Amino acid sequence: MEGHYTYTRLLLLGNTHYKGVKKPFKEVIKANIGDCHAMGQQPITIIRQVLALVSYPKLLDDPRFPEDAKERARTLLKGCRGGSMGSYTDSPGIEVIRRHVAEYIERRDGIPADWQNIVIGGGASDAIKNVLKILICPIDGKKPGVMIPIPQYPLYSATLAEFNMAQIGYYLDEANNWGLSVDELQRSITEARKTCAVRAIVVINPGNPTGQVLTKQNIQEIVKFAHKEKLFILADEVYQHNIYDPNSEFHSFKKVMHEMGEPYSQMELASFMSASKGYMGECGLRGGYAEVLNMHPDVRAQYLKAITAMLCSTTLGQACLDVIMNPPQEGEPSYELYLKEKTSVLESLKVRAKMVADTFNSMEGFSCNTVQGAMYAFPQFKLPPKAIEAAKAKNQAPDAFYAFELLESTGICVVPGSGFGQRPGTHHFRTTILPQTDKLKDMLDKFAEFHAQFLKKYS
Amino acid sequence: MEGHYTYTRLLLLGNTHYKGVKKPFKEVIKANIGDCHAMGQQPITIIRQVLALVSYPKLLDDPRFPEDAKERARTLLKGCRGGSMGSYTDSPGIEVIRRHVAEYIERRDGIPADWQNIVIGGGASDAIKNVLKILICPIDGKKPGVMIPIPQYPLYSATLAEFNMAQIGYYLDEANNWGLSVDELQRSITEARKTCAVRAIVVINPGNPTGQVLTKQNIQEIVKFAHKEKLFILADEVYQHNIYDPNSEFHSFKKVMHEMGEPYSQMELASFMSASKGYMGECGLRGGYAEVLNMHPDVRAQYLKAITAMLCSTTLGQACLDVIMNPPQEGEPSYELYLKEKTSVLESLKVRAKMVADTFNSMEGFSCNTVQGAMYAFPQFKLPPKAIEAAKAKNQAPDAFYAFELLESTGICVVPGSGFGQRPGTHHFRTTILPQTDKLKDMLDKFAEFHAQFLKKYS
Repeated sequence: MEGHYTYTRLLLLGNTHYKGVKKPFKEVIKANIGDCHAMGQQPITIIRQVLALVSYPKLLDDPRFPEDAKERARTLLKGCRGGSMGSYTDSPGIEVIRRHVAEYIERRDGIPADWQNIVIGGGASDAIKNVLKILICPIDGKKPGVMIPIPQYPLYSATLAEFNMAQIGYYLDEANNWGLSVDELQRSITEARKTCAVRAIVVINPGNPTGQVLTKQNIQEIVKFAHKEKLFILADEVYQHNIYDPNSEFHSFKKVMHEMGEPYSQMELASFMSASKGYMGECGLRGGYAEVLNMHPDVRAQYLKAITAMLCSTTLGQACLDVIMNPPQEGEPSYELYLKEKTSVLESLKVRAKMVADTFNSMEGFSCNTVQGAMYAFPQFKLPPKAIEAAKAKNQAPDAFYAFELLESTGICVVPGSGFGQRPGTHHFRTTILPQTDKLKDMLDKFAEFHAQFLKKYS
Repeated sequence: MEGHYTYTRLLLLGNTHYKGVKKPFKEVIKANIGDCHAMGQQPITIIRQVLALVSYPKLLDDPRFPEDAKERARTLLKGCRGGSMGSYTDSPGIEVIRRHVAEYIERRDGIPADWQNIVIGGGASDAIKNVLKILICPIDGKKPGVMIPIPQYPLYSATLAEFNMAQIGYYLDEANNWGLSVDELQRSITEARKTCAVRAIVVINPGNPTGQVLTKQNIQEIVKFAHKEKLFILADEVYQHNIYDPNSEFHSFKKVMHEMGEPYSQMELASFMSASKGYMGECGLRGGYAEVLNMHPDVRAQYLKAITAMLCSTTLGQACLDVIMNPPQEGEPSYELYLKEKTSVLESLKVRAKMVADTFNSMEGFSCNTVQGAMYAFPQFKLPPKAIEAAKAKNQAPDAFYAFELLESTGICVVPGSGFGQRPGTHHFRTTILPQTDKLKDMLDKFAEFHAQFLKKYS
């Protein structure tokens, strides 16, 4: 694992020099992390205006700020004790923001949402950990387990390990654009039940690292499976704004379950959303929420008690979330600019999603599913036997070896598939689609050139 | 515990009505939580200016913002990837802020500080939990334990319970202004060693909930004890700016240990500081840091690895911390206003600290130590036997019973001593000194009146 450690160090350093040796590239391109603004995406103006106004309320008199930003800021300040963002809020968040979240969900799904089911956290990660925590209790002496997709976002494996819960992987079906197969879910749970008490299933839709958008039918199958197996559903829906494929549409688990009617509409569900992704990409501000539905009253009481025992998530992260949940409406002064900025980000991501998948599909030994949503591609690639031997000699996983050579030669950082999980014997990596279009084109050209040379070197 | 639950609910509601019944008071005075701005304290102007500037950098052209605020904002933006507060930062925080923290500590103590020992968290609570987490491993099959003061800040008991670590209480010496007695430390550790592996000692200085400021001599005694017993020291020094007693001075553990020379200067230490307290009171923004010294290299590697596995703390909380660490200096345009605001808050707290202790000491059956620092008084009070019986009949701790009656009659919220721990048979509560002076005077008048009536009722 030393090789992997060095690779991580190099990523962290992000340097064009290492141990004094100059690298053969001018800059490191960090396609390894979903960090939108770091890659040049511009913030949405009204979000930042509201943050400035609530931070320094003297600006409420400034005629250069639009009235709809001021109105939102005034509402937020009224929701804070002492009228200051410097006060602690209720642990589940500022009430008016929780109400705006519920209204956002109602508009999205066309069905009612109760603000008291909304718990705001310091990012979706925080909200996810707080829900996983309530599933910790062993049942009948068996370790509690949670089903997670493979490949998966490492937050889940890390949190389950931290909480000493069993991680139960189910493979996504790469041949079926990373959809979920009920047969595979069944295989996975049957095997897991021999050793642990399976309590919940995590579904990431749109997918990270896999970029798929689940069909309504696929979601219905998952819901029926979860119902049959009495599983709590955790729906990680933080990429709900990031849909690029014209044939794909985002369906929230909540809406699908509602449409399926009883008993499915009465199942336990937690859905997560974040300020960090979508068209806003405000990762650094730390805002996100959980909507928690139909939780058993005892469990709900325990969950809310645990939340209340904590302080609160950052007020400015909450304020950022508020603007996303309550964006300018037609007729408001900021509406046109907001729409233009939002559309521009999403349209550009759409172009880049296609560019990335097309490029990889044109490369020898590569196959890449359509990037229907989210911010990532997770292409599969074949390695020549000599490359696999070279990796073995260096005590590296083959995909890590490949990613390391890529970084060393080109400065392009991607994350080896072994960091997310993949079927044994297959090789993948995750790249973001976040470099701005010109830089992305440049990166993909360099990548193709590297790959051709790599194949030659190890042929 | 139902009574306690109802009490907590009432606190949460903060209402002048409960279950439709009007209460005999016009407003609830929340003296139960160290929430400065909620109680009317005004933010420090330059902190908020910098937050507005980094949130909405267009304001950098605005002539109404002072140049030193702009300069700080520019430096912070330069430290962010893509020049945006919306990007993830390194997990231990933005490098330039960590450097400013180190410089702040150097100015405070007059001895060197290394910025690489600084880890920024979403408040000191977050930083404290991350350090406690590295002490989780059992030793020789024995549960790891941490010594904490009684009374203590409940963060510690809650975190130790969450991490399944043993809580080893040592009593503070109320008769000696809540100082630490080595005899008591020795008694506590000797007893604990029978059942667990004692790994660390937490010291809160200035004290919460007890308001003491430790003398240098007392700190030296604690350090010698920790050295003899091979304990890691966690110094919770978040109230380092809140010193009111002219006979008291803040001595950091780091400085005292440095002055004591080897071997003490080489001991493991983590010291914590926060943006939430002091003269700034920015609780809602969530900024704080740990300085970690002399950690065993293996443990340090594990600690930093765990930090790196997380995302990052909120950038705007980090930015707030930055201004506190790098405040305006003489000659800078904001210096005078900053100094005036800071002094005004601290001078007013000083007046209030004395007012609170004096008032309680004038009440029958009360004794209250000088509030030398922090933001709290923790007076002891005697209850008539009839009141203790009445509490028993209601299945409440006597101090909770008293606090509940106080709240019901006057709207004044304080926290019963049983929430912090106290010697068996004694009764205390914690009140903040945070209500603004006029309101505090009013509160204390009402309190004295209530107490006289309470004694009459239960005599």
